[in-house]
Amino acid sequence: MEKLNVGIIGLGAIGQKHCQALAQIEKANIAALADVNESTLLKTVKTYGGNAYEDYKDLLMQPDLDAVVVATPDEMHTEPCVAAAEAGKHILVEKPIATTVEDAMAVIAAAKKAKVKLMVGFSLRFNLHYLQAKKMVDDGKLGDVISIFARRLNIKTQADRINGRCGVLMFLGIHDFDALRWIVGSEPVSIYCEESTSVTKKYPQENETFSIIRFENGVRACAHIGWNLPLQHLGGRDFKLDIMGSKGALYLDQMRQGIEIYSETFSKYPSVSSGLYIEDKAFVDCVLDDLPSPSTGEDGLVALRMVIAAIESIKTCKPVTL
Amino acid sequence: MEKLNVGIIGLGAIGQKHCQALAQIEKANIAALADVNESTLLKTVKTYGGNAYEDYKDLLMQPDLDAVVVATPDEMHTEPCVAAAEAGKHILVEKPIATTVEDAMAVIAAAKKAKVKLMVGFSLRFNLHYLQAKKMVDDGKLGDVISIFARRLNIKTQADRINGRCGVLMFLGIHDFDALRWIVGSEPVSIYCEESTSVTKKYPQENETFSIIRFENGVRACAHIGWNLPLQHLGGRDFKLDIMGSKGALYLDQMRQGIEIYSETFSKYPSVSSGLYIEDKAFVDCVLDDLPSPSTGEDGLVALRMVIAAIESIKTCKPVTL
Amino acid sequence: MEKLNVGIIGLGAIGQKHCQALAQIEKANIAALADVNESTLLKTVKTYGGNAYEDYKDLLMQPDLDAVVVATPDEMHTEPCVAAAEAGKHILVEKPIATTVEDAMAVIAAAKKAKVKLMVGFSLRFNLHYLQAKKMVDDGKLGDVISIFARRLNIKTQADRINGRCGVLMFLGIHDFDALRWIVGSEPVSIYCEESTSVTKKYPQENETFSIIRFENGVRACAHIGWNLPLQHLGGRDFKLDIMGSKGALYLDQMRQGIEIYSETFSKYPSVSSGLYIEDKAFVDCVLDDLPSPSTGEDGLVALRMVIAAIESIKTCKPVTL
Amino acid sequence: MEKLNVGIIGLGAIGQKHCQALAQIEKANIAALADVNESTLLKTVKTYGGNAYEDYKDLLMQPDLDAVVVATPDEMHTEPCVAAAEAGKHILVEKPIATTVEDAMAVIAAAKKAKVKLMVGFSLRFNLHYLQAKKMVDDGKLGDVISIFARRLNIKTQADRINGRCGVLMFLGIHDFDALRWIVGSEPVSIYCEESTSVTKKYPQENETFSIIRFENGVRACAHIGWNLPLQHLGGRDFKLDIMGSKGALYLDQMRQGIEIYSETFSKYPSVSSGLYIEDKAFVDCVLDDLPSPSTGEDGLVALRMVIAAIESIKTCKPVTL
Repeated sequence: MEKLNVGIIGLGAIGQKHCQALAQIEKANIAALADVNESTLLKTVKTYGGNAYEDYKDLLMQPDLDAVVVATPDEMHTEPCVAAAEAGKHILVEKPIATTVEDAMAVIAAAKKAKVKLMVGFSLRFNLHYLQAKKMVDDGKLGDVISIFARRLNIKTQADRINGRCGVLMFLGIHDFDALRWIVGSEPVSIYCEESTSVTKKYPQENETFSIIRFENGVRACAHIGWNLPLQHLGGRDFKLDIMGSKGALYLDQMRQGIEIYSETFSKYPSVSSGLYIEDKAFVDCVLDDLPSPSTGEDGLVALRMVIAAIESIKTCKPVTL
Repeated sequence: MEKLNVGIIGLGAIGQKHCQALAQIEKANIAALADVNESTLLKTVKTYGGNAYEDYKDLLMQPDLDAVVVATPDEMHTEPCVAAAEAGKHILVEKPIATTVEDAMAVIAAAKKAKVKLMVGFSLRFNLHYLQAKKMVDDGKLGDVISIFARRLNIKTQADRINGRCGVLMFLGIHDFDALRWIVGSEPVSIYCEESTSVTKKYPQENETFSIIRFENGVRACAHIGWNLPLQHLGGRDFKLDIMGSKGALYLDQMRQGIEIYSETFSKYPSVSSGLYIEDKAFVDCVLDDLPSPSTGEDGLVALRMVIAAIESIKTCKPVTL
Repeated sequence: MEKLNVGIIGLGAIGQKHCQALAQIEKANIAALADVNESTLLKTVKTYGGNAYEDYKDLLMQPDLDAVVVATPDEMHTEPCVAAAEAGKHILVEKPIATTVEDAMAVIAAAKKAKVKLMVGFSLRFNLHYLQAKKMVDDGKLGDVISIFARRLNIKTQADRINGRCGVLMFLGIHDFDALRWIVGSEPVSIYCEESTSVTKKYPQENETFSIIRFENGVRACAHIGWNLPLQHLGGRDFKLDIMGSKGALYLDQMRQGIEIYSETFSKYPSVSSGLYIEDKAFVDCVLDDLPSPSTGEDGLVALRMVIAAIESIKTCKPVTL
Repeated sequence: MEKLNVGIIGLGAIGQKHCQALAQIEKANIAALADVNESTLLKTVKTYGGNAYEDYKDLLMQPDLDAVVVATPDEMHTEPCVAAAEAGKHILVEKPIATTVEDAMAVIAAAKKAKVKLMVGFSLRFNLHYLQAKKMVDDGKLGDVISIFARRLNIKTQADRINGRCGVLMFLGIHDFDALRWIVGSEPVSIYCEESTSVTKKYPQENETFSIIRFENGVRACAHIGWNLPLQHLGGRDFKLDIMGSKGALYLDQMRQGIEIYSETFSKYPSVSSGLYIEDKAFVDCVLDDLPSPSTGEDGLVALRMVIAAIESIKTCKPVTL
């Protein structure tokens, strides 16, 4: 059986999860790991194997390497992506593809030129719940889509973890902006966004927002994006997608997925979904079987444009045309 | 025990519900009923007692009558309200108080001049779920309110019942607009609203909308208002109020209230809440005990302004200042 | 308006709730209160009015008193009930009617002889959720009942509050045993019960049990009764009633009733139901309007027999015939 | 990469699902298929590949075959299992392992003698929800288990599909009997079961039951097993597992898993879980990596004994010792 040799660049929280996922994929082989932090690097190599590199540029020179997962901090996606493309490696880059439109376009152009696969890590496209919702819509079970309400709320510690590196729209909202476009199947034409200002912010960026998005086909979507859930929230997350169609309504709710635990030491609504396994497997299959990328650089670019437009709308108090 | 003699003007769907509620209130006496439809009138008198009037003006002349419930069609609230005030009768008027700002102001002025109580039928202020939410916020259990998401979706037949007499914002949205302001405890300063256009409308008015409301204290609220739920929706309604605060999150959901039935002939999530009883009792007590109106004419006016502003926003594609 | 003068005997936790409920009932007048604890007595009189008695026998001699609520400890129901009957007072006695069959029969006989109303405080018969379930069954919406699963689980502190005065079947289970019989509409013929023994008990009585009840009409019911929920359980209660019928299934769940709060200091699924108001109002109406008791002494006796049989079954490891 | 050549014997509903699952497992190769129905056989071979056999005995002679999945009707498990063992093939047999204790023991003995792996298809052991519940218990998150309530209710058409070939305990209950024992981690010592008799049965076997199971360690479990759900039940299933422990409570509910659809043509609570993939992969890994069977023949035998004991208890109206 043919196997894909994959290198992971950036071994922070999400990089670790990609290691975990790839280790379970039989057609994937973790062949190389790179991180600037030596101790993280060595610990990860110990667990998952592969060659260790402190500099990703050295990793890209490993001859048997087929593909890379770029999981560096958001604003550091562009360089390794462009370099990976130039080295002929297929690329799975974490969302956002980049933090500016120019950078995103550079990544797309480099991948196109090098004829390597480019996939953006929009994990909702590979999530069991969202996949079912997408299928129901595509199968016409709800008739024509009229409106969608999306929500992605996280607990406060998430904001602390990001620590002002970006706002909640870039970190969480981009998931829903992409998922909405993916499910609606039409391009966004404008976005209006407001940010709550009732409570003093800890970080300069927006942290609780409502956006209304107009799609070319007339669908209106609304996204409620924030990270103000209290620590005692049993889900630690409130992710929803409610679709109203001309013939039906679909409710997706990942706050509760069928298990609840109440205990003396902790209480929780655990998630039963499968993490990055399906996403990373889709990447591996896309490369090995030469399939189209299931979430392209262009998808990444549109979602990024939506985030930037929403932030502009907050400032201008007007809908922003995309 | 002192009893309040109440007359009900308008015996359509909601008028009937007021009869039912008042009949259960021990301090209330249904003393008079008025409707232009003679057969409805006679049937209702047979059930609930009281004198029958085809013309509400005659009803207002009944000497022992203390108060009226005005439940005529929306655009016909003003005349009976003003006349009732002039006749010295206390008034519980169904929402909206009127369909224009001028009319609303006329009703308020008439009540003020006549020194009669004026209460607007914002039933959410008397609903067990919303009362609890309000109390939690007022008691500071959630810290400072950051954002609120409100939803009021009904099944399609509701739109057919209204049959183009008004849009969904005036019919349903006004409830949430008032409830949001009541719970936030701050005045709305602007509203932005979009209407879905993906599906051909049966009636000229808006029928599926998202609104973002800015309050003076910085809270942002979002209202999802529509009547496109499919007939097979087991709740027949999707009413929610999700409050994010600086110290807590509250979820109110009236779609399911603790009972579900799945059967061969019908399936349903019944409501266990108590209808108009608490509202009408509050009106009766307010008059008998000379208490302040729990939902004033001014409250009715602000909510009406919000609806009008939202409809204007749909047309202008801009946020509208209140 | 005619009013009922009511006296409350026993002002512990449940006695206080009856005071609260009666105070809201317009046709009821709290005319007398009795408790052996003087300070409790005086505090309660201060809040609700009425004459104060340390000895319930003195209370029963108050000439204008029409009726009493007996809310003394379980094993002390018989004497005040019999004395109240002999004094010609109508009686609402808390569940269980008594703790032995003989005592229950004495209470029933005394009430019959004195021709006073006797009602047992089976609060589920007056609970909005259970009333709807009962109505659905009676209306034939589910066809013929096949099976019912009932659950009543409370948090551990409840057991500590009772402190070994009785087991969980007498305290909680009796509610469901009565409700099952009330909803099934047939007499129980046998009961089989097992008690969990995996964990050392703090009190001698049973605290976690499953019972299977056979009804005359062939329905089987199962009751899961216990008080082992952890303190962090957000409901503090897990009350369910799942009815399977030949044409439908009904799920009643009071753990969540449409509101959830997650906060930094506490998290909770509040109850929105109405407490004892409906029950106490039914008692008042039953006396004033000379209606049949909605939960008779005989009902109380059967439920008591069921509890006693279940406890016997635990000991004998056999089904016990009723 | 080493691959396991698997043959599937019996291509009915569940056999088809195994084909589907195995086709997705990269280390598995569908090498042979057998069914007495020629048209089913050919259609399945067309979809999944492999050699076609009308007689499973011929299939067992295929030299490169490593293992078989036995998915014949319940009462026809023994012969192919014993023959497969004698042919040196590893065995995944659908539940129940057999329909009599003697047969089950023959299968176990044959596998032991031939030193082949024997695994029984208890799918709950490989279900995302049940795996999480098991892990929580094993990790001590709930303290010591006190009681468990298990439910497995299906819609009526399921009974029609089985058409009297077995009762609901053998078909559905065996899943929970095994899962309870697996989670409790102790042996069952007695079982008491009652069957509802209020409604005339369509098939001779039990179809709605409650069982109380006593485990060696004192835990009590109750299983509500039936197939009387109405066709309009949106889940089509009601599968629950509620665990009460000395330090916590866990609720598992597969009726709703985070998606709900209400439409004009159908309404549904879809399942998001992963079917047989995890189970069949566990079988493949168990053989290839020479791991212990995750659900042994002995497990299958105990679960079968529990079903037989429950049916005996229904007849004798007494608890049956295991």
